[in-house]
Amino acid sequence: MLRWAYFKQNDCMIMTDIIPTPQNNKANKKDKQKKNMPVAQTPRGFRDMRGGALRFRKHAINILCDVYEHYGFEPLDTPIMEYADSLGKFLPDVDRPEGGVFGLRDDDEQWLALRYDLTAPLARFVAANEQSLPRPFKRYQTGSVFRNEKPGPGRFREFTQCDADIVGTSSMASDASLCVMMSDALMALGIDASDYMINVNNRKLITAVLEVAGLGGDDETTTQKRLITMRAIDKLDRLGADGVRLLLGTGRKDASGDFTAGANLTDMQIDMILSFTSCGGDNDRQTLNNLNHLLGHNETGRAGINELEMMAEYIAITAKNPQNIRFDPAVIRGLGYYTGPVFEASLTFGVPNEKGQIVQFGSVAGGGRYDNLIERFTNRPMPAVGMSIGLDRLLTAVENRGRLPVHKLSAPVIVTVMDYDHVKDYLKIECILREAGIKCELYLGEAGFKAQMKYADKRGCPIAIIQGSQERESGTVILKDLDLGKRLYSDDTGIDGGERQKWQDYAQSNAQIETPYHDIVPAVQKMLADIAQRT
Amino acid sequence: MLRWAYFKQNDCMIMTDIIPTPQNNKANKKDKQKKNMPVAQTPRGFRDMRGGALRFRKHAINILCDVYEHYGFEPLDTPIMEYADSLGKFLPDVDRPEGGVFGLRDDDEQWLALRYDLTAPLARFVAANEQSLPRPFKRYQTGSVFRNEKPGPGRFREFTQCDADIVGTSSMASDASLCVMMSDALMALGIDASDYMINVNNRKLITAVLEVAGLGGDDETTTQKRLITMRAIDKLDRLGADGVRLLLGTGRKDASGDFTAGANLTDMQIDMILSFTSCGGDNDRQTLNNLNHLLGHNETGRAGINELEMMAEYIAITAKNPQNIRFDPAVIRGLGYYTGPVFEASLTFGVPNEKGQIVQFGSVAGGGRYDNLIERFTNRPMPAVGMSIGLDRLLTAVENRGRLPVHKLSAPVIVTVMDYDHVKDYLKIECILREAGIKCELYLGEAGFKAQMKYADKRGCPIAIIQGSQERESGTVILKDLDLGKRLYSDDTGIDGGERQKWQDYAQSNAQIETPYHDIVPAVQKMLADIAQRT
Repeated sequence: MLRWAYFKQNDCMIMTDIIPTPQNNKANKKDKQKKNMPVAQTPRGFRDMRGGALRFRKHAINILCDVYEHYGFEPLDTPIMEYADSLGKFLPDVDRPEGGVFGLRDDDEQWLALRYDLTAPLARFVAANEQSLPRPFKRYQTGSVFRNEKPGPGRFREFTQCDADIVGTSSMASDASLCVMMSDALMALGIDASDYMINVNNRKLITAVLEVAGLGGDDETTTQKRLITMRAIDKLDRLGADGVRLLLGTGRKDASGDFTAGANLTDMQIDMILSFTSCGGDNDRQTLNNLNHLLGHNETGRAGINELEMMAEYIAITAKNPQNIRFDPAVIRGLGYYTGPVFEASLTFGVPNEKGQIVQFGSVAGGGRYDNLIERFTNRPMPAVGMSIGLDRLLTAVENRGRLPVHKLSAPVIVTVMDYDHVKDYLKIECILREAGIKCELYLGEAGFKAQMKYADKRGCPIAIIQGSQERESGTVILKDLDLGKRLYSDDTGIDGGERQKWQDYAQSNAQIETPYHDIVPAVQKMLADIAQRT
Repeated sequence: MLRWAYFKQNDCMIMTDIIPTPQNNKANKKDKQKKNMPVAQTPRGFRDMRGGALRFRKHAINILCDVYEHYGFEPLDTPIMEYADSLGKFLPDVDRPEGGVFGLRDDDEQWLALRYDLTAPLARFVAANEQSLPRPFKRYQTGSVFRNEKPGPGRFREFTQCDADIVGTSSMASDASLCVMMSDALMALGIDASDYMINVNNRKLITAVLEVAGLGGDDETTTQKRLITMRAIDKLDRLGADGVRLLLGTGRKDASGDFTAGANLTDMQIDMILSFTSCGGDNDRQTLNNLNHLLGHNETGRAGINELEMMAEYIAITAKNPQNIRFDPAVIRGLGYYTGPVFEASLTFGVPNEKGQIVQFGSVAGGGRYDNLIERFTNRPMPAVGMSIGLDRLLTAVENRGRLPVHKLSAPVIVTVMDYDHVKDYLKIECILREAGIKCELYLGEAGFKAQMKYADKRGCPIAIIQGSQERESGTVILKDLDLGKRLYSDDTGIDGGERQKWQDYAQSNAQIETPYHDIVPAVQKMLADIAQRT
């Protein structure tokens, strides 16, 4: 997660709309407490969002929802809270299985908890409404989820997930369609095919390799070894095969000197596991052959390979970029409840890490099959498969790659007030423009003209409408092209040499025009069109 | 709020997508606890939403946001939680000033609370970012708010508000513009001008009438009397002048025999207050004259009348339906923090109440000026005015009046599976349609054809695509018009007499057509267009 923070250094203007309220400002707090005043700050790990950044986010969510709708998913919204026992304990952080949830008691003395993902509430919803739902039930849901964890840079306690799940079928066409849809979703957000990869594995294969390595037992020692082994494989991309070998063996000391205990496997066991995780070939056919060679003799392994083979067939038919979906036995996915295929979308372009080294952006979405999750409410089998996009990380990436057009003219045209005795005249101008479909506002403050121009600048208003006594008498208004004005006084116009003088002449004569009052609508429309073309 | 429940009886199909999970099903719960299984239910007072109802809701929210954007407001999102002390105690339920909020402690041992409205978080946001915000700051926000109260029919503990506020100006043009925008918002949702009214008052006038009636003092008895008086006026629409007269005097016994203590005012005081609340005339000019006569000699009263006069001028210029905004001295608005103009939008069409009597639908939105709210963080004055739409109640109304078109073809075209050995062929059909921009899905379950048609019916799919061995051999597919099929077997086709046989002939020959495989896209497009035209 740290990488995110470093990536943020390159953030463009729009991200400044995500507001870092000063946190734990103790001096300020003390001072306020003395005066018995509350401190104005977001709770630790939470944030405000506004303006451009928020419009950008809503736009991206709409794009994702459109993709999900196009694939036949219907929307679902569940409450922000659930009964704590119905959420269960499926947090991805295996090291703190007891923590991580915001809990509270309602006036019925029942324990409630804020949802920590959208899958647990879906399981509860399906269990409660099994009889009335179409089967398979395909739903998507986007919304905030909450983790009561230590926040860090780029790591918030409220964040957004965009999920799609298919409940009630074991058909591998479902798993395949989610991988294909995940690929479509990334493309729809403007991620190029060369910039992402969806890596697919199967939990059954991991179960199989552990069985074959003699780690299939149910006793406590073996269970513990299995857990450490899974966790170690999950670190392959960060530590490499050598680091993981240490974790599978006697343990590993990291750069800071901290020691992590190992799984204490034998060399043969370690070799077997690492030959599995590294058996991904140049293409899926090769990978499947390697897997067959390693695990084809094991029943669970055979089942897992069969599932991947079916997925491969379906993906080949339906994916627009089949080369962007590949089998990779090194993929684990943190969540404990997966039972079959698992998949993970990674962005493959480089971003600088804390040491200034260029590393892959990494995972932005994931999913998998969880055939036993709903059963815990109903005691009846109910297969299911789902995917989840982590919106916050993905948006940082999308914004940096700059391929999602965001509406530039989102601030309104501003009608300034030159003379407060004539507010009604200015109101009329506002009305005329607004009724013509032009986003527009009368300056509602009480300050002078200079402050109004500052206000327009802060809002990013494209045009200011001005009418002084002289214009009023001659029946005209002045239209100020604030975008051109800004460029005119900027050193960096993007125009050089001989062209520059010409451009300045143009800009000077066009940055401010006087137009008859009755022509105001077409004049503003033309100026807005010019600005849109320019930016 | 009760009226809502009765109104719900008339709800159309779409509302069945708001799912009432069985609550407090104790037998079920006990049984589950025995088996150590969690009970699948939403927490009391919370609900799930899906499918059509949710699309309808999202569509309505988008319409409101578009109106707010058009008026130059920018979006803001604040966290779902705030530090409890920064929320303050501004709940509308004056009878339970201490309750109503969901609180919890985070791992820092800080008290957090789920937001109970969107105004308190806005105040905190502005106080925290005062220096960097444009002034005036105009923001809108839509989102869930939470009340830890006893839920009832149609009364939930998580519900949606759509707010717009203008911070940093005392100009009455702001208050007027919010009234006008509220009117525009209702019209945008398909509420007719004849179906709503926005009633405006000014808290300064209420302060003035209390002063004039000798209730302006700061001692405890007078403060208490003032509180009871305000609460009594707020009940005018329910109890009428006679009922309120009792509450202002010695008290009132209701139909069930419960006694509510009165304010114990003198007859002269009561007369004065009731002559104020009933001084609304046929038009605003008349109302302002009456107010002037009653309160023009009082300084606070004069200030309040001036503000309304300015609002009237601005509204006359900018409102599309100025007759829908009127001054009504009987409007109070529950919230304690208002300091100036207050306004409330009511739907005026009739719905049956619990006794079968037809009553007005009532309030769906409100707002007002709160010049002292932000000051409590900063000790500096910061005027502000805002409005809030209660989405849930409004949607019930909008849906019942049926004037907001909701996309009828929201369910996907379904590709059925006649032969599971040929899933790949069906996948190809799905792909072809999807790439042509047609919302489409392959049936992903594992059941037979009959179950698939049931599934299509449950989803509301417009068309089923069928290919059996015969069609495969002859290179064709069958398109089943499920909408026509449904009408064909329904008694209520809306077509009568001699036309009926003709229609049945048409329907029978068009409900199912066979088309060459390579013509599938135009054939489906044509059938979808026919269905859209029909519905």
